[in-house]
Amino acid sequence: MANSEYEYVRKHETWDALAPENWIVVRIDGRGFSKFTAKHNFTKPNDKRAIDLMNSAATEVLRQLVDITLAYGQSDEYSFIFPPTTTLFDRRASKLATTVATLFTAEYVMQWPTFFPDSPLTRPFPTFDGRCVLYPRREILRDYLSWRQADCHINNLYNTTFWAMVLQGGQSGTEAELELKGTLAADKNEILFKRFGINYNNELEVYKKGSVVYRDLSSSIPSAEEPQSRTQADKERKKKQKATLMVEHVDIIKDAFWEARPWLLAEKARKSR
Amino acid sequence: MANSEYEYVRKHETWDALAPENWIVVRIDGRGFSKFTAKHNFTKPNDKRAIDLMNSAATEVLRQLVDITLAYGQSDEYSFIFPPTTTLFDRRASKLATTVATLFTAEYVMQWPTFFPDSPLTRPFPTFDGRCVLYPRREILRDYLSWRQADCHINNLYNTTFWAMVLQGGQSGTEAELELKGTLAADKNEILFKRFGINYNNELEVYKKGSVVYRDLSSSIPSAEEPQSRTQADKERKKKQKATLMVEHVDIIKDAFWEARPWLLAEKARKSR
Amino acid sequence: MANSEYEYVRKHETWDALAPENWIVVRIDGRGFSKFTAKHNFTKPNDKRAIDLMNSAATEVLRQLVDITLAYGQSDEYSFIFPPTTTLFDRRASKLATTVATLFTAEYVMQWPTFFPDSPLTRPFPTFDGRCVLYPRREILRDYLSWRQADCHINNLYNTTFWAMVLQGGQSGTEAELELKGTLAADKNEILFKRFGINYNNELEVYKKGSVVYRDLSSSIPSAEEPQSRTQADKERKKKQKATLMVEHVDIIKDAFWEARPWLLAEKARKSR
Amino acid sequence: MANSEYEYVRKHETWDALAPENWIVVRIDGRGFSKFTAKHNFTKPNDKRAIDLMNSAATEVLRQLVDITLAYGQSDEYSFIFPPTTTLFDRRASKLATTVATLFTAEYVMQWPTFFPDSPLTRPFPTFDGRCVLYPRREILRDYLSWRQADCHINNLYNTTFWAMVLQGGQSGTEAELELKGTLAADKNEILFKRFGINYNNELEVYKKGSVVYRDLSSSIPSAEEPQSRTQADKERKKKQKATLMVEHVDIIKDAFWEARPWLLAEKARKSR
Repeated sequence: MANSEYEYVRKHETWDALAPENWIVVRIDGRGFSKFTAKHNFTKPNDKRAIDLMNSAATEVLRQLVDITLAYGQSDEYSFIFPPTTTLFDRRASKLATTVATLFTAEYVMQWPTFFPDSPLTRPFPTFDGRCVLYPRREILRDYLSWRQADCHINNLYNTTFWAMVLQGGQSGTEAELELKGTLAADKNEILFKRFGINYNNELEVYKKGSVVYRDLSSSIPSAEEPQSRTQADKERKKKQKATLMVEHVDIIKDAFWEARPWLLAEKARKSR
Repeated sequence: MANSEYEYVRKHETWDALAPENWIVVRIDGRGFSKFTAKHNFTKPNDKRAIDLMNSAATEVLRQLVDITLAYGQSDEYSFIFPPTTTLFDRRASKLATTVATLFTAEYVMQWPTFFPDSPLTRPFPTFDGRCVLYPRREILRDYLSWRQADCHINNLYNTTFWAMVLQGGQSGTEAELELKGTLAADKNEILFKRFGINYNNELEVYKKGSVVYRDLSSSIPSAEEPQSRTQADKERKKKQKATLMVEHVDIIKDAFWEARPWLLAEKARKSR
Repeated sequence: MANSEYEYVRKHETWDALAPENWIVVRIDGRGFSKFTAKHNFTKPNDKRAIDLMNSAATEVLRQLVDITLAYGQSDEYSFIFPPTTTLFDRRASKLATTVATLFTAEYVMQWPTFFPDSPLTRPFPTFDGRCVLYPRREILRDYLSWRQADCHINNLYNTTFWAMVLQGGQSGTEAELELKGTLAADKNEILFKRFGINYNNELEVYKKGSVVYRDLSSSIPSAEEPQSRTQADKERKKKQKATLMVEHVDIIKDAFWEARPWLLAEKARKSR
Repeated sequence: MANSEYEYVRKHETWDALAPENWIVVRIDGRGFSKFTAKHNFTKPNDKRAIDLMNSAATEVLRQLVDITLAYGQSDEYSFIFPPTTTLFDRRASKLATTVATLFTAEYVMQWPTFFPDSPLTRPFPTFDGRCVLYPRREILRDYLSWRQADCHINNLYNTTFWAMVLQGGQSGTEAELELKGTLAADKNEILFKRFGINYNNELEVYKKGSVVYRDLSSSIPSAEEPQSRTQADKERKKKQKATLMVEHVDIIKDAFWEARPWLLAEKARKSR
């Protein structure tokens, strides 16, 4: 057959399965979003419509990929967490990254008119790149999520102060940037409060904490514990599909969030003994 | 700073740059397209609107990523070719695959209403997974493209015959499948001609050959030859941006296509001597 | 300079650092050892000189690479364990694998005359291939070591029975193989005891359990806990260099061995909180 | 069976096959050779015995691994070239690197007494680390080899001058180093000639050019052209095993060497047409 003489080229495809029993994070990031947000006049420092759209798109990704345990988003990025036990796409990195990124992108552009009814999309359309990162232990995964939430806080405090100085204080961007250089959190809080009467603590939680999306399995038995029969796995899949998807803006650095939702970080039980 | 204590998790991100001086193919494939095409009643064996949409989306990808030399598409797949010299995204596999896949997906869903005005998209929206494959020499890259075009021909001949038997011949899908099992090209040509009066040669070239999209640089000096100064590189980039994007349905297995467009397969000249 | 025009080829070298915070196993295996052991008339089922040589070579590898926590060997293989915190050779896989494999090979051939004074080495000289394997959690690392020790037991019981049947029972190799096919451990124990008066439990522990080599740090404070200052790291290195190297033939599947030597499996403490 | 409950750990072993149809270089480097050469009083700038030992060890590696086309060595390093068609060890990187490195190490320490009869090896014994590097095209492979030979020349000219200044000129190492900083080749040639009457051109070729080891297949038909039957492959293997192993100290940067030995750089013919 004519085909077979060329088919040898398939052996150049690499098998990019991710190491087993590691947590998988697929993080997506908006491509060229500074230009994009300017073009569509996002409000500063935060555009509530844009954040709601991000969260709505992420929620839909979780609905379609039941293997995802949890997602955390802030600004134009979102991190999707797959548990160590996942075998989705045989754990192939490129399948995981491109599937999550294209699902998110499709939702983002399709839902856009709902959140921005008066600002139709023009080219270049918004897109998101993505990558897989592995974390060998739940403690390190938590540090990853803490890193993203700490980043959210730091950026938001900076941006809130910067835009108050510019929009309310009438400073130029360059002036504000210069003044903020090297300041600590306390300094920024003081600028906000003294100059603009803004108590940072009263800012919306969604701005200060970002958003965590997860399946509420609180009423069901913990998963991912023991190797399961086919039927058990099917049952569990259905349970996940039916579970309510929660979107919250809460602290995920401290232990409380995780202790109250123990199914989120369950690691595979040891096979032996 | 609060951030730094968690920032160590970044060292888990892997640097996935693809080997230098290899041709890079990013191939995307429609996810779950048998269900999707059924839901939207694609005509069989080929839906011209769907193919036109694929080609239009691919053309837009080339317009936005000038590093892409050429793309070849058929059915629900498209292969985008980056030359050995490309340094786009530092050749990082995940960036390349997710950028191409999300660009294509965004174009596909945004352009959908133009091609399917009467069939609004419903969830799950169409998405495309993607992967990078490396080819060390132009001959092997050509074999890759020949493989895809031979695959297009084989599938199209099969599908054309199968759907003639079902839609015009009134056979059931199972009957047609059974009868076609083990048949050669000549057998299928005969079924088409004798039973249905179809001369396969007269089928549309776009169905038989698929589609090749490329930048017409015929009037400009060959690129990618010698290491260039910044200004030269900028000039060339602009030339590429201005170049007409061609969409053709022609044989890319034989030499003629390539000999007439020598800039498409130019490999980096040897640095030394 | 003449050199620089070619130096670009260096960018083809890949950076093969292993994922951080995973346990690293470097396992080496004798190449072509069935021929080699036949040529040098190793006694069957076990050659005590050969095992002593393996253990002596492994001990020397631990002496020279203080990062190695523990090694386990049986037959013609040895597994060397590096802790999650190791930064030896920047965790580059090829450096780790080739360094351990060549150190072991050099020791094996140099020490050979001590253990086999009457059987000088001839070509092909004994060599060992090697590979790195990552384990994300200590429980999985323990399962790896349990796998090797269970393998040792299974093979040794088989070999002890097989060679008793052949050497003492006068059966041909083929006969013995056929009879042993499908037998359980209990069957083999019975053959040994009933036919040859051998109580398998009385066989040497080194044959039944293999060999574990480790640094005795029982009198020192646990390591690898907290990020250390340079001086602390130096102190600890010296402590490791002075520590006695133990070679034991004991159960490493059950918990007792590990509970008595807690420094062997210490994982990096979480950076945060 | 007891074994199976742990055997799951095998899935953590990664399949590290190198990309097909690329040239494979396995380069080995002496570990800690500045200390080692000092301990054994290697003569400066070159120790002929040490170079002969390197070449003898490399020759033996080629004898045992017939897939190797050619090797190039200088100082304490050696590069072994496998052709794009090699399937040795299924092209697994770790097997290739550790096999070449341990074969070389075993030969080096076993042949040591022949070349250094009066200087028995003491610990740490000499060992060599190794790595695989891929080159997609023969031109780039040649640039790799040119890079190593240019490096040999540059280092040897420097070392010859430096040691003349120290050993004959009575300068201290620091003085010589300082004076040589920033000098060009012409400057060093002049120092050698004017101060010490040394014409660098008259130095031994083995010092100036390094050593290339290859199989002389000049009398046999070129290999690696077409896919072969088993019998053909066996014949060719035997031809290679019988071929004379050449060790030469010649220019491999210019074309002449390669044009006279066309079998060395034969690339796989294209499968199609």
